[in-house]
Amino acid sequence: MSAITIWNEFRHERANDAVAEIYPDGMHMVLAASLEDDHVVQTATLDDPEHGLAESVLTDTDVLIWWGHRAHDEVAEEIVDRVQQRVLEGMGLVVLHSGHFSKIFKRLMGTTCNLQYREDGVTERLWVTDPGHPIAKGVDGYLELSETEMYGEPFDVPEPDRLVFLSWFEGGEVFRSGCCYRRGNGRIFYFRPGHETYPIYKNEAVLDVIGNAVRWATPTTERNSGRQFGERSPAEK
Amino acid sequence: MSAITIWNEFRHERANDAVAEIYPDGMHMVLAASLEDDHVVQTATLDDPEHGLAESVLTDTDVLIWWGHRAHDEVAEEIVDRVQQRVLEGMGLVVLHSGHFSKIFKRLMGTTCNLQYREDGVTERLWVTDPGHPIAKGVDGYLELSETEMYGEPFDVPEPDRLVFLSWFEGGEVFRSGCCYRRGNGRIFYFRPGHETYPIYKNEAVLDVIGNAVRWATPTTERNSGRQFGERSPAEK
Amino acid sequence: MSAITIWNEFRHERANDAVAEIYPDGMHMVLAASLEDDHVVQTATLDDPEHGLAESVLTDTDVLIWWGHRAHDEVAEEIVDRVQQRVLEGMGLVVLHSGHFSKIFKRLMGTTCNLQYREDGVTERLWVTDPGHPIAKGVDGYLELSETEMYGEPFDVPEPDRLVFLSWFEGGEVFRSGCCYRRGNGRIFYFRPGHETYPIYKNEAVLDVIGNAVRWATPTTERNSGRQFGERSPAEK
Amino acid sequence: MSAITIWNEFRHERANDAVAEIYPDGMHMVLAASLEDDHVVQTATLDDPEHGLAESVLTDTDVLIWWGHRAHDEVAEEIVDRVQQRVLEGMGLVVLHSGHFSKIFKRLMGTTCNLQYREDGVTERLWVTDPGHPIAKGVDGYLELSETEMYGEPFDVPEPDRLVFLSWFEGGEVFRSGCCYRRGNGRIFYFRPGHETYPIYKNEAVLDVIGNAVRWATPTTERNSGRQFGERSPAEK
Repeated sequence: MSAITIWNEFRHERANDAVAEIYPDGMHMVLAASLEDDHVVQTATLDDPEHGLAESVLTDTDVLIWWGHRAHDEVAEEIVDRVQQRVLEGMGLVVLHSGHFSKIFKRLMGTTCNLQYREDGVTERLWVTDPGHPIAKGVDGYLELSETEMYGEPFDVPEPDRLVFLSWFEGGEVFRSGCCYRRGNGRIFYFRPGHETYPIYKNEAVLDVIGNAVRWATPTTERNSGRQFGERSPAEK
Repeated sequence: MSAITIWNEFRHERANDAVAEIYPDGMHMVLAASLEDDHVVQTATLDDPEHGLAESVLTDTDVLIWWGHRAHDEVAEEIVDRVQQRVLEGMGLVVLHSGHFSKIFKRLMGTTCNLQYREDGVTERLWVTDPGHPIAKGVDGYLELSETEMYGEPFDVPEPDRLVFLSWFEGGEVFRSGCCYRRGNGRIFYFRPGHETYPIYKNEAVLDVIGNAVRWATPTTERNSGRQFGERSPAEK
Repeated sequence: MSAITIWNEFRHERANDAVAEIYPDGMHMVLAASLEDDHVVQTATLDDPEHGLAESVLTDTDVLIWWGHRAHDEVAEEIVDRVQQRVLEGMGLVVLHSGHFSKIFKRLMGTTCNLQYREDGVTERLWVTDPGHPIAKGVDGYLELSETEMYGEPFDVPEPDRLVFLSWFEGGEVFRSGCCYRRGNGRIFYFRPGHETYPIYKNEAVLDVIGNAVRWATPTTERNSGRQFGERSPAEK
Repeated sequence: MSAITIWNEFRHERANDAVAEIYPDGMHMVLAASLEDDHVVQTATLDDPEHGLAESVLTDTDVLIWWGHRAHDEVAEEIVDRVQQRVLEGMGLVVLHSGHFSKIFKRLMGTTCNLQYREDGVTERLWVTDPGHPIAKGVDGYLELSETEMYGEPFDVPEPDRLVFLSWFEGGEVFRSGCCYRRGNGRIFYFRPGHETYPIYKNEAVLDVIGNAVRWATPTTERNSGRQFGERSPAEK
């Protein structure tokens, strides 16, 4: 059991009827419902004070899930600093779909995190490239989504530590859809599925992978363990 | 200018009329013709004495290209030992297509190098995932083959040091088609295109990538440079 | 709780009085004693039938620990094949000290696994380079051994997926002492400490790291999960 | 022949007599002198307009060398943005010594880049861990510096793509001293030697490694090659 905080921009759901119909209470509530049997779950959104990410919230969070899209720019630098520091201390981070362009993901990657895309609602098939990885547990060969947005290569991220999923798209493209990173003591997983106008987070297989990712990203050592820096006296006497 | 040895099993071309029609003198001769303007090229085949890979040949080889398919088992262990040692000393190795199942590639990878496949002659598109990599030089987004065999994930190899190409297949699959490795001082590149019954090695774009791979795999240090092992006296006096 | 098999060559302890004094029942028994509170532990040695590694033993093993030194050559190829296959299926493998030169480690790495060494019984200090890694859990900065054999760079192995420990030696050398790899579905950890004439496996800190490694290497998916290879019909209909 | 720009903070040399005695014209001039036989070299310093890094300068730069220490904070964010973008487009970056704490290195790494240190002027020995790497060319086993500052682990950077040098320090510590990264199309090398109060950049072996690093980091593809992002029409018609 981990302590999960689900962060959602929560703007599309309030501004767009099509999205509101799929996620009337917001995507975060659907994700929360899928995780709350196994974890202690709280949610936070952009328009909450401090975007819902007060120091005390992050201190108590083992894994932060992040979904954002149209308002990345409104996330305060101070909060990005705080989340980055907490990841380096050991908090896990699961970045979903359009979160590839979030300030926090770009900050941790050091690159633009840019990609190609097309909103055409056709088939995606996420193949498992690393069947022994805990995040792929329970996925039999691939995971198929019948209607989704396309993301295509090149994906401007550092080479992943491990690549768990590779996507095939009906329109002819491919994409590295499940990428693992370590930064400081923190584990980071980028997972592609999740456009707001398709009910991706109602797909049980997608939710299972997010559950796997949460378990994988949960810290295994104490907060900030072993991160002693600065001047030191010699180890040899 | 590098010294290249092209190794070809050279059995399909002699046993199968359809293959002989595409490659009357063997695949190795077509590859040789494409590389000989820029490099010193020699060829070697399974049925040559020592499979054409005498010590002196390997000593004089900067990069070895390997194509095999139906007779992997006939390659002598002693020659595999010799090629492995030469790779660790610094010789580059470019493994093509069905060479994924060669003894030398399995030896260097430590895994089965198994995969999924289907011979159905439909479209493959190799997307560049690493556009700054010298092996992708000159490829504009992707390289398309209209008729080819399919190879699909999982591909049982160690996570590549760098992934340069990702394939999309018309039948719905994906594959890590261009994989870079280092073993000892040697650079290894696995490149998927090349089934014997499709004229893949007459495709200029494929040949250009093989040329890029040869340049990339050429050693940059002296043979066996820095590989001093065994008992040593203290560095500190 | 994992099912552990500890494999020991068990020759030094029977042939050398100095070693027998430290490990009268063999190193494997000391390692077993340190792990049996948390795991189901069995042991196996070179001179057992099938070296103690019958199919049924490996099937029931989550993590295999390997110590060998002077009799690597006596390990039958057939058993090496069997262990390799079981690792690729998901069994964890913890290779200790002189096990760097075992057939199974060389087989899985694809390199010579050679290194520099000196038996001079001076200080080693293993620094944690990856404090967030579960194998480093509980180690505060470094782990010190007052009398040990030296292993020095270069170490002819593939670049580790993650480097957990780096050793400093009094004689002036360094060594990558804790290296993580994945091959197939299996997790592999090489851990340097352990010469037979120093009581290294009576050091609690060393034993704690081995315990951490066992937990890390325990498979998280079913045996052979997702390793479907061979011909397949199209995913796209 | 590459186009090199050497960036130096150039403050210590003007404020501290001991440093001025070693580098009367600044460290950048000593580095420039060592590189100008093989390359087109220009220099830039913090107090130049735009820190000497106008768009046109960066456009014409193949590899940027960076040394900074006490005035990292005075580097304008706008210039950091510009350098980062140029690296992602393909420019090489060689970060020296205390440059680990520069804004540009932290930006590209996504971590604090913090470490342990001690200014005690004792011996460092940089061992080659990757003797086949072009940056290690010409180094025979190790490179020794008799008086230097210590940097120790943990070093809070992402796991390097390749580790070329590992340092041993007389005081008992170790450090990953030569680390290769790719970000976007750009190659990045962090190289530890170089404290301002020791004449490190007068050591021929150190200068040779910097020369090797410059060659390695020189782009092999056109500026921004293959970095096409944004909406696209289907590859499949």
